[in-house]
Amino acid sequence: MYTDIAAAGLQGRNFLSTQDWSVDELETLFSIASRLKADRAAGVPTRLLEDKTLYMIFFDSSTRTRTSFETGMTQLGGHGIYLSPDRMQISHGENARDTANVLSRYGEAIAIRHCAFGEGNAYLSEVAEHASVPVLSMQCDVYHPCQILADYLTIRGEFGKTRGRKLGVARTSAPNYARPIAVPQSLILMMPRFGIDVTLAYPPEFRLLPEIEEQARANAEAAGASFEITHRFEDAFEDADVVIPKSWGPLVHTRDHEEGIRLIEAYPEWRCDSERMALGNDHMLYMHPLPADRGREVTDEVIDGPQSVVYDEAENRLHVQKALMSLTM
Amino acid sequence: MYTDIAAAGLQGRNFLSTQDWSVDELETLFSIASRLKADRAAGVPTRLLEDKTLYMIFFDSSTRTRTSFETGMTQLGGHGIYLSPDRMQISHGENARDTANVLSRYGEAIAIRHCAFGEGNAYLSEVAEHASVPVLSMQCDVYHPCQILADYLTIRGEFGKTRGRKLGVARTSAPNYARPIAVPQSLILMMPRFGIDVTLAYPPEFRLLPEIEEQARANAEAAGASFEITHRFEDAFEDADVVIPKSWGPLVHTRDHEEGIRLIEAYPEWRCDSERMALGNDHMLYMHPLPADRGREVTDEVIDGPQSVVYDEAENRLHVQKALMSLTM
Amino acid sequence: MYTDIAAAGLQGRNFLSTQDWSVDELETLFSIASRLKADRAAGVPTRLLEDKTLYMIFFDSSTRTRTSFETGMTQLGGHGIYLSPDRMQISHGENARDTANVLSRYGEAIAIRHCAFGEGNAYLSEVAEHASVPVLSMQCDVYHPCQILADYLTIRGEFGKTRGRKLGVARTSAPNYARPIAVPQSLILMMPRFGIDVTLAYPPEFRLLPEIEEQARANAEAAGASFEITHRFEDAFEDADVVIPKSWGPLVHTRDHEEGIRLIEAYPEWRCDSERMALGNDHMLYMHPLPADRGREVTDEVIDGPQSVVYDEAENRLHVQKALMSLTM
Repeated sequence: MYTDIAAAGLQGRNFLSTQDWSVDELETLFSIASRLKADRAAGVPTRLLEDKTLYMIFFDSSTRTRTSFETGMTQLGGHGIYLSPDRMQISHGENARDTANVLSRYGEAIAIRHCAFGEGNAYLSEVAEHASVPVLSMQCDVYHPCQILADYLTIRGEFGKTRGRKLGVARTSAPNYARPIAVPQSLILMMPRFGIDVTLAYPPEFRLLPEIEEQARANAEAAGASFEITHRFEDAFEDADVVIPKSWGPLVHTRDHEEGIRLIEAYPEWRCDSERMALGNDHMLYMHPLPADRGREVTDEVIDGPQSVVYDEAENRLHVQKALMSLTM
Repeated sequence: MYTDIAAAGLQGRNFLSTQDWSVDELETLFSIASRLKADRAAGVPTRLLEDKTLYMIFFDSSTRTRTSFETGMTQLGGHGIYLSPDRMQISHGENARDTANVLSRYGEAIAIRHCAFGEGNAYLSEVAEHASVPVLSMQCDVYHPCQILADYLTIRGEFGKTRGRKLGVARTSAPNYARPIAVPQSLILMMPRFGIDVTLAYPPEFRLLPEIEEQARANAEAAGASFEITHRFEDAFEDADVVIPKSWGPLVHTRDHEEGIRLIEAYPEWRCDSERMALGNDHMLYMHPLPADRGREVTDEVIDGPQSVVYDEAENRLHVQKALMSLTM
Repeated sequence: MYTDIAAAGLQGRNFLSTQDWSVDELETLFSIASRLKADRAAGVPTRLLEDKTLYMIFFDSSTRTRTSFETGMTQLGGHGIYLSPDRMQISHGENARDTANVLSRYGEAIAIRHCAFGEGNAYLSEVAEHASVPVLSMQCDVYHPCQILADYLTIRGEFGKTRGRKLGVARTSAPNYARPIAVPQSLILMMPRFGIDVTLAYPPEFRLLPEIEEQARANAEAAGASFEITHRFEDAFEDADVVIPKSWGPLVHTRDHEEGIRLIEAYPEWRCDSERMALGNDHMLYMHPLPADRGREVTDEVIDGPQSVVYDEAENRLHVQKALMSLTM
């Protein structure tokens, strides 16, 4: 039933960004994810990675990412090892080259989360350069590709055909610290490639990396989809089929912490509530990668309401990642 | 050989307290635990939970609990994932509802240890309310049901019939911090339901929760067993078949830390030694959930002596928990 | 194919030092390690420890050791549990006896890393005394036997016959803290037993434990090999077939931290570079257990150069440890 996995020729491939994979390759991944999901629901064993090992290096904490990857490995018959740099000798000066080479000798893939702005992607790329096994991103400072795979599987699961659907990606307000920009960046990069029209809404100081916005524009154009940037929160909701309102920090605008916190507090009205939800289509989905800052980012009424598919979205992390691991490891 | 597992109809059931399970249901659990123990001794594989995942969330540290649960999952063909809140996004404000819903989508059960007085049981209950998979207590502020299952299996293993046996539960002195009351509370709740006569001995300030003592009394009456509370240490030993002398703090009496420490130091003579052991029946067993404060709670002579079955008791954690997981997951 | 494992009669044996095993027993281990290595390369499953559990207690951090042991258990069909004392009740006063007894009831082996000078080996020995399952060293203050097994497998893999080969073990300079002496001590103990001539080079203050140097001398004599100590760095390289230049601290000379740091900084020229490498035979191998302090201990040119086999050496940790676990568990 999974004979197309070998035929896909993706064994050994890295996955640092959806941008590195063609639409056809991603379609293969979604197809396998859907079958793995159905097999799990039916209780059919899928031991595609028997006795294989995935290393999961977390420079930043996680719940969904760690549990979904590690559980996925178990369900595929293998094992995921949780590694935290403060307990590894990375803190004794071990470099990326050594980590990559040694882990390549022991196991079958290296997954990394490293969100420090200006550092994460560089580290993942350096490990990928030296590793002879696939390196999989569990989120860096630039990309969070697995989240977006899950988001797309959720949207496709709800609507079937995705071309021509409108997705609103909106920056919301959540206090205390500047959350990463990896999720919105990955959304605007991949969704247009599947024909989804994207509206990205943020206050001016919350712009994303210029080269990412540029690439998103190019992706949309090549796929015949639209991609628009606006500074009005409501634009993300109007006539939308899906809305993903999510906090991120003004990381591109300023590296000054105080200024960042001030800006984060400056737009308290960028919050998803029932009134905003009413601007979209009746069937509009509310999505969020979690954890959401309830009360600040979104009202309980919305996130616990009938349009919210946040738990389906979280569940799909499991299925897409199992497909990703089955294909590359 | 384990066909009665499905027939028991316990799949999906929570286990926050023995009180939630009928005596018949608990008997089924002990029966399966005994078979799993025999099969392990004989080297017979028991892959009843193949490729299934148990999440183990520890708000408090542990050796026996973590290793027995995780090893149990391995022996059943599945995998236990150790999760510590400080490395999860619980510390980023993720609520119990989200944790319950997301983990229910990925794996097959959620086990939790949360001993903070006045918080633990509430948290477990909230996760149980939202989870669609079973929630298993690894100890909260009120209950430690798995420990008591192990204790009962140990007593039954030594004596066969348990009705009419006398168990002494006595509070001992151990310095520095107020240990939880979950173990004595769970002992007095369950043991009388199996016909065991219980004598509970503590200095007045070390009383347990009134509603638990009340429920214990009702349980004893319903089962035709006796339940007595005394403030004399030796009462727990006299004519007893089993004694479990264990430290706990004056948590119900006072929330004041200084006063608590003062009271803990106030009864240094509440210590299990050979003289006290001599008060019981010749075959009397010494039990303790470990770790014991050697020298303060108990003399080396007793805990390392011929009447001590502390390692059998610890071992039985493994077997009862494997039975619990096999039945509910 | 692995029927000689049972015949070897090593089940239940501890492994705290290579010194406890005969040359024949070690030969059996290397033979199995080579087969496990070949089987892994060929993709042949080797489920020799199905559903068995190894406990890995780390008092000190690790990358290679943890990942190679844990991955090894997965490849053998079992599971390794990573335990850190600060999250165990060892920090609540649980003693070695209790840990040994309880873990012996749950799983099949206990591996420990405990490098604190003057404490580690004593702790491992105490656990071994009370455990009924094998206790395996993952490095203590005195020995690092698994590293040396890997080193020997690497040397034998390169040269076939090892008798008469010359190995230079040289102390290098690495700042900031006094690294353990377990690696050089284990090297000089075991290598001569396989006929390898060893030259040990260090500045006078960096001598090893007198009883270990004495035992190494006796081992060499018994095996008809040579063992020499010198205070000239270059002696370790001249005419050598293998060189292992590695930092360690003046732990035997002084317990004073300031004095230790001063001495570590006192010999900056004890560094492995191309000029020193040129002193050895043309085919001389450069080895290091990693992590190496690049720039201080060794130049990039050497460690990343053609004579370096550090990643083969790291890989062999996996194979020798799988053999060790298969034989003892």
